[in-house]
Formats: sequence, structure tokens, C-alpha cells
Amino acid sequence: MVPREEIENRTRAFQEALSAEGLDGALIVQDVDLFYLSGTAQNAHLVVPADGEPALFVRKTLSRAREETSLERVEPLRSLRDLPSALASCGLDGGRLGLELDVLPAAQFLQYQHRLERSELADCSRLLRAVRARKSPWELEQIRRAAGMLSRIDRWTADVLREGMTEIELAAEIERLLRREGHQGIIHFRGFNQEMFYGSVLAGPSAAVPGATETPIVGPGPNVAVSKGASSRPIGRGEPIIIDLCGTWEGYLADQTRTFSLGPVEDKFHEAYEAAREILHTVAAEAGPGRAPSALYDRSVELAGDREGFMGAGEERVSFVGHGFGLEIDELPLLMPGADEPLAEGMVFALEPKFIYPGEGAVGVENSYVVTADGVEQLTTAPEELIEL
Amino acid sequence: MVPREEIENRTRAFQEALSAEGLDGALIVQDVDLFYLSGTAQNAHLVVPADGEPALFVRKTLSRAREETSLERVEPLRSLRDLPSALASCGLDGGRLGLELDVLPAAQFLQYQHRLERSELADCSRLLRAVRARKSPWELEQIRRAAGMLSRIDRWTADVLREGMTEIELAAEIERLLRREGHQGIIHFRGFNQEMFYGSVLAGPSAAVPGATETPIVGPGPNVAVSKGASSRPIGRGEPIIIDLCGTWEGYLADQTRTFSLGPVEDKFHEAYEAAREILHTVAAEAGPGRAPSALYDRSVELAGDREGFMGAGEERVSFVGHGFGLEIDELPLLMPGADEPLAEGMVFALEPKFIYPGEGAVGVENSYVVTADGVEQLTTAPEELIEL
Repeated sequence: MVPREEIENRTRAFQEALSAEGLDGALIVQDVDLFYLSGTAQNAHLVVPADGEPALFVRKTLSRAREETSLERVEPLRSLRDLPSALASCGLDGGRLGLELDVLPAAQFLQYQHRLERSELADCSRLLRAVRARKSPWELEQIRRAAGMLSRIDRWTADVLREGMTEIELAAEIERLLRREGHQGIIHFRGFNQEMFYGSVLAGPSAAVPGATETPIVGPGPNVAVSKGASSRPIGRGEPIIIDLCGTWEGYLADQTRTFSLGPVEDKFHEAYEAAREILHTVAAEAGPGRAPSALYDRSVELAGDREGFMGAGEERVSFVGHGFGLEIDELPLLMPGADEPLAEGMVFALEPKFIYPGEGAVGVENSYVVTADGVEQLTTAPEELIEL
Repeated sequence: MVPREEIENRTRAFQEALSAEGLDGALIVQDVDLFYLSGTAQNAHLVVPADGEPALFVRKTLSRAREETSLERVEPLRSLRDLPSALASCGLDGGRLGLELDVLPAAQFLQYQHRLERSELADCSRLLRAVRARKSPWELEQIRRAAGMLSRIDRWTADVLREGMTEIELAAEIERLLRREGHQGIIHFRGFNQEMFYGSVLAGPSAAVPGATETPIVGPGPNVAVSKGASSRPIGRGEPIIIDLCGTWEGYLADQTRTFSLGPVEDKFHEAYEAAREILHTVAAEAGPGRAPSALYDRSVELAGDREGFMGAGEERVSFVGHGFGLEIDELPLLMPGADEPLAEGMVFALEPKFIYPGEGAVGVENSYVVTADGVEQLTTAPEELIEL
């Protein structure tokens, strides 16, 4: 259960953002945003007036929504025809109404346009994502537990990795251990066509296979339809093995990457790995409130210098070095060019310097951090060396 | 790799549907539809003129899209600004253009409206879903292999089920076995806010917990943010255990439910299970080309008669008894009221009669079928009795 005070604070922050943007209210329907603002991810329409009490209108399942949310006003919504009167009952009869246009399906948007003809529909995703970027102490507790789930990845990998095993077989063993700790399996990704489960376990050339996922490391995947993550390729001796996983707790994520191998890796990989660690720690030490995410990106690129393969090779290079996370893996801030909105206390981000060599392999390291009053604190705690087993 | 002939046949069927609907072409961007029509799920815009050759305009990753697709024309797309000229190069300069409005994010739709002001945008999802509903022999091969992945669920469950284990612990063991066979983990769900991974492993009262997922059985889930599927509740003796899983092969799914228990279950559950099996086999025997899906739904309800709990209890009852599947778990046909478009040879559907008792548990059985020239053929083959271990 999300505490009542959390929901009240989040609602207040979102209402302030709505008012500042000249919106009279918002209609929230995406399940992650719903969970954030109401404490339940049941199928519902959440009406948040810029001024006044929010109300939850539930399609399915009402009883469960009532158990899960601390909101006072929870009512059934039988049909979208009843939406105008639901909005009016919250003081929203016409006016500017915010919708989550980045995730709302177009057909549903067109239905709202038709049903809510007295309202002017606008996008409020950016506002809500900005509110969600700053985590409360309660949220940080969940994220710490999510990070804790990843703390034994060194021992787990040592226990289950066997010569001749495929990437998928290694993934199966690690996923089993995570699942036994209550891992939710699915990682929520906001971006269209983006999806993830657990994360990636990739070895040698597989780790350098690019793809449609908005991550530096993608991988071949189990098939062409799900073309990301572990493949059925056997893990060879001396190949760097990238284990990039999310822990989860009560819906919250933490993101961590470590590099392993069966037997020693080439010097080139060792050197790149040490360069990645150096970038990680230098940039983390320079991060803190007031610093622009784009400056951390620039600094990472500067530290990588002439070393090839930083964040991908050639055309497949991604232009970010880290990302926010929380209930979704692609939250704000993004550590990329143009991201000039300064970091603030309570924001969390994953920093993931990686070096990628097509046809050969990839090495890298990633930690999750929270921005504190005067710097950052590291949340992911597994041993950080390149571990040769 | 999807064979070239598959892609050609699918394209032709979709083009005929576009023409019949008075559309001049379609712009396809959702990854599953992309994979269906091009053989790659890379980030791309697929232009399908109603008359002429389709072309794939790729954002990320071009090299991989070229390896995966059998389409002749594959080009980079640097920016959405280049979309009008890409369309024009396929003979589409203005005219009626189909988009996947049921899954396309509203913000992206509004961008297309802005960039493609000479085109009249329309929804082509229904057309494409209807084409996708009829499976080719090659697709049926993949679906048979997906079904085969579930054929040993009786032995697997007997091997791993232990007294005192939680639902999540049982799920972890079964998911590991599936994963080792190459299971893709993620199950593609087309509906907004719908998600699934592997399926559901639920025991006793958990199996009767309703929720937002559009399935008869939902479950509590690992947390309130991911409120579906297995929970951390220990499995008790005499509780029916529902194991409702998808197998996967090359992106294709098959869906199967079996019921187990640790020790004997109450007579009430036995009787309901036998009633579910009776419905399953009677309705399957009556299914075939020309039959309306709605008639199969009506017949199931009729056969369930006065027995309470059929497809859910009270307000939480779902109004369908089966669904199409393929690359997504919620494909056409839906076996529900109003679904009067007759079944045709090559369609596949899962039939899943279930009886649900709030606070107590659920029992049910589900097989996947393909519609043949004169009836249906069962694809899922695990032993069907309620297995008491």
C-alpha cells in the first residue's frame, strides 16, 4: 500500500504543476501514472482538478481499487458516456484538461475529443514526469530494496555460471533467483514499442548486437519478434559477460550492470572496463543538485576521450550515458545533450558507461544513484570489479 | 526469419483489405504489426500502398532490419520530416492513409497529422487484425511448437511443487524450465495497459482475485503496481492450483490452462472442473468454419447452466470464453457476445471455461485450437485431468 501522505504530496505537486501550466485539471488513465497518483493500478480514470479533491472512476476492478487506494472518492464508471458528468462533479466542466498524450492510444484520445467537446485537451505527460522525477523518502526506501535485490549478483553468477551454457540458460538461473526474491519480472518502459523483462544477460558478440530498444546494450534476443536480450548462443571462454538487470520492489526499480567472464578476457576489454569505472566514479563524484544532466553527459564523453566504442559503435552509438528510473525504467532525468533542467535533491538516475565492440563484445558498469543535498549517494552495491570466474 | 513468401502473402491480403475499405495505403509502426508485415521488429515505418511495393524506412537499427526482412526496399529514415517524401516515393502523396490508431500514442498521431497534412488519416487496425486472425501453414508450425513447449507441464509441476512453497516460488521454477526451452518471457498484449509475462500460477483464493487484466483469472501479483499473476502467498493443501501459461516460438504464442493440487480438493471443485472440461470438449466439437464466435460463447453459457462462478463471480464476471492468439494474446476472434464474424479455416483460438469462487479458489481448463476445413484441431496436448499430487 502506498501511504496516504505520499498520495497527498504527489497530488499537491502535480496540481501545482497543472496550475503553473494553465491547466484546469488532468484525466489520468495509464496504469503506472494511476498507481503513482492513486496507489492502485486498476483500470480507472483518475480526475485531478488543479484545485480540489481528486476522484477515481473505476472500470475494473472496483473492490480492489477501493482496497488499494487511500483516495476518499472512488466510484464506478460504467461507460465513457458518463465521463463528462464525472469531470463536472470534480468542478471540471470545460476548461483545459491534461491527458497523457505520450502513452494514450490515438483511438482513445479521439474518443475523449468526441465525448469531452467542451474541454480543450492538452498534454500533461511532461508535467507529471517532472513531478515523478523527484523521489520522496518513502519512494527511496522502495528503490533501496530494489537495489538490494541485485547486491548478490556476484555470488549468484559464480554459483550458476557453467562452461558451455547459453545466454538464455544463464539468464534462466539468475531470473529464477530474482523471481524467488519477489521480482515482478516485467520492467515498465514508457516509450512506445519499448519493453523489458528483468534486463539483459549477454556474452561476447551478442552484447554488441544493436537493436530497437533505447538502451546502449540490446542483444539478439530469443527470436526476431522479441529481438532484445539473451540469445541461445553458448557463452565462450574469455568473453565479457554483461549482466545488466533491474531489481524491483513494490513496483519501483533499480538498475545495475556488472561484467563477468569465464576465464581471463583480453587486455583490451580490461582496459575498457577500467575506463568505464573511471568515468562512472568521476562523473558520479561531480554530480549533485544544480548540475545539468547534459553536463554529466558531456563530461562522460570527454573522459572517454579517443577510446573507441563508447556507448556504441558508429551509427549505433546512443547519445545518452544515463537515465532516471522509478516506476518506469525511462524516467527523467535523461543524461543526454539538451537535458539542461538541473538535477535536484531526491532525483535518482542510473549512470552506465559502456564500451561496445561490434563482432567482439561489450564491457561496462552501471550504478543507480540518488541526488542528495550536496552530491549523490550510490544505491547499487554489488562488487564492482570485472569478475573472472 | 519469416520466409519471403509469408511476407508477400500477408502484404497481398492486407492490401486487398485496404482497397476494399477505400484506403490508399497504410503506415505501420507498432512493433508486432511491423514484424508481421516485414519480418523485423526494428524501429521503423513500414509504408504499404494499397497497390504497389511496400517499403521499410528504418530509424534503429538499419543493419539489423536489413538482415531480418525479406522486403526489397529498406532505407534509413533520419527524421519524421522525411516521412512525406518517403510516402510519396511509394506513390502516396495525399489520399486516405491507414494508421494503427488502437496502439499508436496520441502525441505521435498528432505529429503525423501535422507532418502529413495532405493525407486523410484513418484507422486500419481492424483490417490488419482481421488479416492476422487467419494463420498460414507456416504460422501454424510456429504455434504448434509454442504449444509443444507446454506439453510437459504435468511432469514439470509434479517435479517442482513442494509443500509450503509460495505461488511465486512455484512460478519461478516453471518459468525457469520454460525459459530454458527458449521462452521469450514477455507475452505481447495489444490492449492498452495490458501486460503479461509467461502467464499465471495461482492457488486457492489468489486465483479468484479479480483485476484490471482482460482475462477471467487475474490474481494478486507480486505487488500493487504489478497487480496480476502469482503472489507471495504459500500454496495450501487441497487448494486448486491454476497453471495458465503461454508457450512461445519465434514470437508466436499458444495458450493452455491446467489445474493441479497438493492433496485432494473438495468435491465442489472436482465437479466444477469436470463441468469446465465438458464445456471445453462440447464447444470445441461444435466449432468450425462458418460458426459465429458469439454462438460458441452462448453455447458455453448454456452448458454452464445454473452452476455459479462461470467466468467469474458477480460484477467481476468476464463476458468472453475464449480469444484468438498468435503474435499477441488478444487477437481476433474473441468468443464473446456480438462477435458474429464467422470462424474461418486457419483461425486459432483458445477456449478457457473457468469457474471462480471468491475467497475460495478457481478451477478451469484451456486448450488452443486451429479451425480446419470441417471443424477444429486441438493444439495443446498436456494431460487434462485435474492432477492431485
